[in-house]
Amino acid sequence: MERRFERELESLKTNLAKMGSIAEESLGIALKALLSKDEALARRVFVMEDKINMMEMEIDTAIIDLLALKQPVAGDLRFIIATQKINNDLERVGDHAVNIAESALTLQRLSAVTIPSEIHQMVEIARTMLKEALDSFILVDSALAHTVLRTDDQIDDLNRAMVQHVIEQVESQALTIEGGLELIRISRNLERIGDLSTNIAEDVIFETEARVVKHRAEQKDGN
Amino acid sequence: MERRFERELESLKTNLAKMGSIAEESLGIALKALLSKDEALARRVFVMEDKINMMEMEIDTAIIDLLALKQPVAGDLRFIIATQKINNDLERVGDHAVNIAESALTLQRLSAVTIPSEIHQMVEIARTMLKEALDSFILVDSALAHTVLRTDDQIDDLNRAMVQHVIEQVESQALTIEGGLELIRISRNLERIGDLSTNIAEDVIFETEARVVKHRAEQKDGN
Repeated sequence: MERRFERELESLKTNLAKMGSIAEESLGIALKALLSKDEALARRVFVMEDKINMMEMEIDTAIIDLLALKQPVAGDLRFIIATQKINNDLERVGDHAVNIAESALTLQRLSAVTIPSEIHQMVEIARTMLKEALDSFILVDSALAHTVLRTDDQIDDLNRAMVQHVIEQVESQALTIEGGLELIRISRNLERIGDLSTNIAEDVIFETEARVVKHRAEQKDGN
Repeated sequence: MERRFERELESLKTNLAKMGSIAEESLGIALKALLSKDEALARRVFVMEDKINMMEMEIDTAIIDLLALKQPVAGDLRFIIATQKINNDLERVGDHAVNIAESALTLQRLSAVTIPSEIHQMVEIARTMLKEALDSFILVDSALAHTVLRTDDQIDDLNRAMVQHVIEQVESQALTIEGGLELIRISRNLERIGDLSTNIAEDVIFETEARVVKHRAEQKDGN
């Protein structure tokens, strides 16, 4: 009985890690679609979203079954609660990847828009944050999770810089309003992926250190 | 023992209802600040957010204690899981109220911007959706929860109309790019409150009908 429960926790972790790597891949493809303006790649992201949504529901059901049938306590319970929250965060990462893929398609249509350097930097940071957050979960590495928390400010600053850049470019007519809105949408989605990676890191810290670090510094939703 | 557990579930529900009414009030004040361009009102929203964040953590801790100490099953477990998700959604409603209050302050500065009719309509719908979602939780009324799900399309359509409106207004120089971006930000935050109300309604349906209605229709995060 005890052994079986451990195997079930192991399998939950494996499934969440799998979902994490699909969410990461989906984001990677969306970003590649964006930077290369590749329509077929963008469409692959929409297919992956269905897969991610299905996995989220499966993992959620598995978690509720574990809570109901095994009635876990202490560390196991914290692990399961963290898993549940990370599952939700990864599903939202998938949604943001879809939004970026949609923007990639729109930018193909608005062919004159070049991707500014801020977005390139945000792409790198968002991917690193998500990767490190997932690694911190898999390796149960709370030091790495703390690294993710420290990175979030950078992406927030770049997001603000992007808005300023777009305002100037539209005012000087170097960019259309439609192009500008699309760049801001991309920037915001990248910033939200940074926030979600931060959420995941916070959940890892909760799991490993049994303390809540949320709302420690200000972190807004949506913007 | 049994009686005590029931009292604890009752108290969890009361606390979540209280948090719901604070989130609702915070949104109401943010919207009033926006429509009346009242700075003092906008600042009240920031104070309320601290209160909401604190309540979220308290409720989350109470939930983990209940799971650990009472090991609930079946309907009680579904109720607790729903409570946990709604708690998270309400905290995010608080974040969006803060975003709207920030926009209210920005619009004071950009005094030439008038609030278009789409925003007025979205304000009404978002408030109604949130109220009905919370009522459906308190009254355990899944029919009312289904009503909320059906309303979400309206607010999505208005959000799209707003973006189009802003593009036209900026192009015809009836609106500055800064003013336009702020209106879109408000519109998006209202639309997200609609999504979160939908999430709450889905959790009520999960609790009462023991089935998952998420991902039934497409519902994106963030946009």
